[in-house]
Amino acid sequence: MSDNLSNAQIEQRLAWRYATKRFNPEKKISSADWKTLEQALLLAPSSFGLQPWHFVSVSDAKLRESLREASWKQPQVTDASHLVVLAARTSVDAAYISDFIKRAATTRNIPESSLDPYRGMIDGFLSAMANKPGAVESWATHQLYLALGMLLTTAAMLGIDACPLEGIDPAFYNEALGLPAKGFSTKVAVALGYRAEDDALASLEKVRLPAESVFTCR
Amino acid sequence: MSDNLSNAQIEQRLAWRYATKRFNPEKKISSADWKTLEQALLLAPSSFGLQPWHFVSVSDAKLRESLREASWKQPQVTDASHLVVLAARTSVDAAYISDFIKRAATTRNIPESSLDPYRGMIDGFLSAMANKPGAVESWATHQLYLALGMLLTTAAMLGIDACPLEGIDPAFYNEALGLPAKGFSTKVAVALGYRAEDDALASLEKVRLPAESVFTCR
Repeated sequence: MSDNLSNAQIEQRLAWRYATKRFNPEKKISSADWKTLEQALLLAPSSFGLQPWHFVSVSDAKLRESLREASWKQPQVTDASHLVVLAARTSVDAAYISDFIKRAATTRNIPESSLDPYRGMIDGFLSAMANKPGAVESWATHQLYLALGMLLTTAAMLGIDACPLEGIDPAFYNEALGLPAKGFSTKVAVALGYRAEDDALASLEKVRLPAESVFTCR
Repeated sequence: MSDNLSNAQIEQRLAWRYATKRFNPEKKISSADWKTLEQALLLAPSSFGLQPWHFVSVSDAKLRESLREASWKQPQVTDASHLVVLAARTSVDAAYISDFIKRAATTRNIPESSLDPYRGMIDGFLSAMANKPGAVESWATHQLYLALGMLLTTAAMLGIDACPLEGIDPAFYNEALGLPAKGFSTKVAVALGYRAEDDALASLEKVRLPAESVFTCR
């Protein structure tokens, strides 16, 4: 890999990031930057590589207006350059696993049968959840938040502001975006763009627990 | 903020990242890099800023040996430069909220009473979960995975390899690290360091769903 980024550069961007409440509605994310943000989601890791998720980028203004109503009227939903809805897969069936194994074999140019042990691990993992209602969806949601963390960090590295939105009505989002019919359920959204100059929160110091109560060494 | 990183640079690092199976046990993360990785966890966002988590960096060799036994004997647990265990808070009580509000008021030099509306939002959010067993822990786990995503991305930006470890025995980890007594429960771990030259997985192409089935636009 090429030369690394400096520690100071990375730490500065991590500190610069904050949950942006007011976006500048005039300032849009460039298509080059958007492509990089998409890559953060597409390349995000997940358990076994199963990618139990779906992402919807909502640009339709009317749709965003209606989603805002289902999001405690938070202005980020309409004002940010981009709005991404993150949805978790609610079940994983045998066909999904078979497709995954086929794709892995094709991508890596190996016989499917060589992946039998891996398929066995996946089957074992999923069958352990089979009798627990909501277990697959919960597992998929963990993966989804990991992807969200990758997206937020990538945005910060690019100097792009973001605000994760958990205060949303998933049922309304699901209906508006037709997600359940595809096997997904909305868990969280994220607004991405550029902070408004008058967002008072931007300049506030971060409120954090003392490092020693968050992090211990053994 | 200073000049931004190039899109190509960031995309290259996202693609370079993979779940490292074989670490070089001789190659250690520098203290400067470690500090940056800690910052990724300390500065990670969480619902309301509540940081419902605890991170344990395990360096004790004997302890890592025993954790490896409780992790399907995965060699990353002992061979990586660093092992971080991520634990979620299992409950959030009134004292925790009061401390949070006090800390916010002190950090931002504002009267506590000015945070009453914010405290009300937090109280409302938590009381909605009060009668649902496991709801707080599940919510905290989401936040934890977001932090994990930030850690993985930051590591990739630094050219540091990582492997998230979900195949671990949380009960064993909890006991070994004394986490339940502090109000936390192990959810996932991550090994960090440098890939071994003979890790065959490093050079394999990533297996991914076609972009259009992961990402849609509306």
